[in-house]
Amino acid sequence: MFDKAMWKETDNKLVREFRFKDFQEAFTFMTRVAFLAEKHNHHPHWINVYNFVRIELSTHDSGDVITEKDRKLALAIDAILQ
Amino acid sequence: MFDKAMWKETDNKLVREFRFKDFQEAFTFMTRVAFLAEKHNHHPHWINVYNFVRIELSTHDSGDVITEKDRKLALAIDAILQ
Amino acid sequence: MFDKAMWKETDNKLVREFRFKDFQEAFTFMTRVAFLAEKHNHHPHWINVYNFVRIELSTHDSGDVITEKDRKLALAIDAILQ
Amino acid sequence: MFDKAMWKETDNKLVREFRFKDFQEAFTFMTRVAFLAEKHNHHPHWINVYNFVRIELSTHDSGDVITEKDRKLALAIDAILQ
Repeated sequence: MFDKAMWKETDNKLVREFRFKDFQEAFTFMTRVAFLAEKHNHHPHWINVYNFVRIELSTHDSGDVITEKDRKLALAIDAILQ
Repeated sequence: MFDKAMWKETDNKLVREFRFKDFQEAFTFMTRVAFLAEKHNHHPHWINVYNFVRIELSTHDSGDVITEKDRKLALAIDAILQ
Repeated sequence: MFDKAMWKETDNKLVREFRFKDFQEAFTFMTRVAFLAEKHNHHPHWINVYNFVRIELSTHDSGDVITEKDRKLALAIDAILQ
Repeated sequence: MFDKAMWKETDNKLVREFRFKDFQEAFTFMTRVAFLAEKHNHHPHWINVYNFVRIELSTHDSGDVITEKDRKLALAIDAILQ
């Protein structure tokens, strides 16, 4: 259903890319992540094109570097997909 | 994640009840069903309370009885959960 | 876009019914309410059929009566529509 | 609620940027656009960060240029916001 590749650290961001069956499945996943983002009070920079979703996480208030907030949200996103 | 029970025919409706882990999971499922409903141009009567979703399908234009449109949407909903 | 009628108290519940242009508009409204429900940690009993949404609010932990939690969520829902 | 600026043609894409009150409002807008995209069978390249949404429209099957499909979806998106 999605790429097995884990989160990568690139340019001070945690990045993971996902590919779904189609747009409906991709956007449904985004809806779930949107709820998590609100719960964590931490929001991704993300891109969607059809079945593709790229999530980038960094902490603006800490100077756009990766912090514990990013790692926690990344783990919560991973937990959706299991 | 959800009840194994299949669709039941009750009062000229196809009915299935689902229980999820929490509200976020339930509403994410509803979002996916909403896309399917639009695609099928056929919309459920449905109820949600926290982690519970009850979907009732019947065809208004045929006099509120169960038709092929209901069976097709039911199958498409089942396919989400596999 | 939706009924002007305000919330009514019925059977120890705050109840309001909404009618939208179509299903897409109704479900988009529901998505917004879903985020509010999570934020308030208080979730409605609600029904949707095509462009119709009926929201019922009561507080389970207080014995299914109307409490301040219901009034606050009702106000937040009203604020969406302004 | 959102920028008044209209769609701009940039690099063979129709581009418009939106700013909302907060993430909830931005993602609710995205949900509405997601339904439209499915209805039009035409999907945006889009980016979201908190209250910001950038939508880019072009037609992949026509060699990534702007076509009538893009203009129609852009108009439908504009219609949401009125």
